Amino acid sequence: MKIIKILKESFIKDLRDVQSQSPLVHNITNYVVMNNTANALLSIGASPVMAHSVEEVEDMAGIASSLVLNIGTLEPLWVEAMIKAGKVAKSRGIPIILDPVGAGATAYRTQACQSILDEVHPDIIRGNASEIMALVGAAAKTKGVDSTSDSKDAVALAAKFASDYGCVVSISGEVDYITDGTTLYEVPYGSPMLTKVTGLGCTASAITGAFAAVNPNRLEAAAHAMYLMGLAGEKAASYSKGNGSLQLNFLDELYVFANEEL
Amino acid sequence: MKIIKILKESFIKDLRDVQSQSPLVHNITNYVVMNNTANALLSIGASPVMAHSVEEVEDMAGIASSLVLNIGTLEPLWVEAMIKAGKVAKSRGIPIILDPVGAGATAYRTQACQSILDEVHPDIIRGNASEIMALVGAAAKTKGVDSTSDSKDAVALAAKFASDYGCVVSISGEVDYITDGTTLYEVPYGSPMLTKVTGLGCTASAITGAFAAVNPNRLEAAAHAMYLMGLAGEKAASYSKGNGSLQLNFLDELYVFANEEL
Amino acid sequence: MKIIKILKESFIKDLRDVQSQSPLVHNITNYVVMNNTANALLSIGASPVMAHSVEEVEDMAGIASSLVLNIGTLEPLWVEAMIKAGKVAKSRGIPIILDPVGAGATAYRTQACQSILDEVHPDIIRGNASEIMALVGAAAKTKGVDSTSDSKDAVALAAKFASDYGCVVSISGEVDYITDGTTLYEVPYGSPMLTKVTGLGCTASAITGAFAAVNPNRLEAAAHAMYLMGLAGEKAASYSKGNGSLQLNFLDELYVFANEEL
Repeated sequence: MKIIKILKESFIKDLRDVQSQSPLVHNITNYVVMNNTANALLSIGASPVMAHSVEEVEDMAGIASSLVLNIGTLEPLWVEAMIKAGKVAKSRGIPIILDPVGAGATAYRTQACQSILDEVHPDIIRGNASEIMALVGAAAKTKGVDSTSDSKDAVALAAKFASDYGCVVSISGEVDYITDGTTLYEVPYGSPMLTKVTGLGCTASAITGAFAAVNPNRLEAAAHAMYLMGLAGEKAASYSKGNGSLQLNFLDELYVFANEEL
Repeated sequence: MKIIKILKESFIKDLRDVQSQSPLVHNITNYVVMNNTANALLSIGASPVMAHSVEEVEDMAGIASSLVLNIGTLEPLWVEAMIKAGKVAKSRGIPIILDPVGAGATAYRTQACQSILDEVHPDIIRGNASEIMALVGAAAKTKGVDSTSDSKDAVALAAKFASDYGCVVSISGEVDYITDGTTLYEVPYGSPMLTKVTGLGCTASAITGAFAAVNPNRLEAAAHAMYLMGLAGEKAASYSKGNGSLQLNFLDELYVFANEEL
Repeated sequence: MKIIKILKESFIKDLRDVQSQSPLVHNITNYVVMNNTANALLSIGASPVMAHSVEEVEDMAGIASSLVLNIGTLEPLWVEAMIKAGKVAKSRGIPIILDPVGAGATAYRTQACQSILDEVHPDIIRGNASEIMALVGAAAKTKGVDSTSDSKDAVALAAKFASDYGCVVSISGEVDYITDGTTLYEVPYGSPMLTKVTGLGCTASAITGAFAAVNPNRLEAAAHAMYLMGLAGEKAASYSKGNGSLQLNFLDELYVFANEEL
């Protein structure tokens, strides 16, 4: 697999395009992270909307620039809404990001992901190593929503899946790996302390949605999102006392990063 | 229309009354903002409760001092609960505040607002310019939950609606406008950075609920709430690095403001 | 009743065991606090998961180390899920903590608690004085989710209930009281400012879940949790400007406390 590096100019272009276009990112996501996800999208200049009701998701996906599906606190009506919204998004050609939170922890989560994969065909799948391995049918174990696998172990499986299924897979971990099956980005930034803030993976998926809304190259968009997460996270962790302040310092760093580049 | 100014003494009186009476503000609101809304109400000494189940909203509205309805992440059972709670609130004469989050973005949101307007008859409607214009039937467009209209454009329409329907309309924006159709408050405080914190509009609606619980003059209560939001927001924005710290600095400023005045 | 003191060594042992075992704490809890609850559990090294769907709660409780049930924003399907998860937890012998948020405020909340008490038989009940009194059938009044009773008034009732029902009762207040009916811990730490942060009671219940996951002595585990809450809360309150910064400083103090002890 061809390993490539982030091009700083393309990354900056994406950041600027998010700020200038302010893409509407439609999130059907979990209760735990909604507030932080919305704030992270606002930090970088995107326009977040959370809407999950089957009565309106098709309309909302119909005006959005990207769709982020996150199964963190799933239930049947929400999965139905994800599929409805996903079909509209697909027909409009806007990017769909799936975050398979906790896939592998319960059969229900794994099945819900499978339904979404079958019926919606997401463009980018972003999760931790355990979740990705559960999704591709490997014998990984997910402990609740935390990974018990190393992201490196998941790369080969992810690449095969990306290639067969025709999508980008973005695996977060100590090093993030982003691949479309033939090309691989390795993003080594971050801090172990970031794993102590709930939902930063979900934030990564939402930011991937913002970048994919402005960059038609899905692989590049996904890699740029993880690069921004890594840089902002590493910076924020360097001066945070605990996970409480880290959560907000991370948002501040996203905000500063996005605004300084303009 | 008669333009009037905030009377500082009446404002201080409301602040003190919220602290001394600690009104129970019953919120049926969206998932994104529940935590911050509750904290903002606690900051100023009010007592927040979030309860949305049709099984209990009538009981909760039956002991509350005001009711805040916010459709940010609506679904049918929640709208039904809003109407049930609203009818009890109406029969008890406690103030009802409606925040039409995202009205105009989807037909479902606009219809849900219409049902609430028809069946509950809220006392105060607080939203951004696009939402208010969507509500009064103007050809405004709402981008997700963000406004694409200037608040000034909405004033004339809002005043006519307030007058015809018999309510107060509170429009947030660079300048906030609060009107009952014959009198108009203009509140010019705040900071553009506040638009980068998710749900501060929802906080404004909840604080309007707290003020309306202690001040029977709905117009004045609504204006005082926006005045407090503007002052605390402007102060907090002046020293916040990004939207992460702004979210909490804003709560701190509310807290300091409310406690210093006592 | 025999009044005993926290043994510092046992407390430190629990803290260390939480860090080294990283117990999976399954929370079926309310929307308002999910984010902070998850972060508080991460602060001390536990692994939080939020899952509420009847489709998966049995599987999740089947791999968890403790189960925390919190009725803060209850509705019928959630109560059903709590009972399903509770039965699995019971059969596996993992500790179940019930937080009866707002019991007494509405008949529905009191009834839901009664169903959970009857069908699940929680090991530890943690609430404020009004909630505990409502639960044991005393004529207490709950104002929304806030207590209107002194925690001391609830002790005798709580002790009788703990003894008759066979559980530990943990009452938070200016002084926290934790009893199994024959022995009583009094934990006098904290700060009035902590009552201005939404959901710290819910955090206390979740942390009780983490401690109970590693310490089979339920009474001791519950007391240690309140002791940690009190110490971290008092420390955080000592330098917080308002309830906004207190919310995150509290998480930071939990984090520092847990990591310094290792």
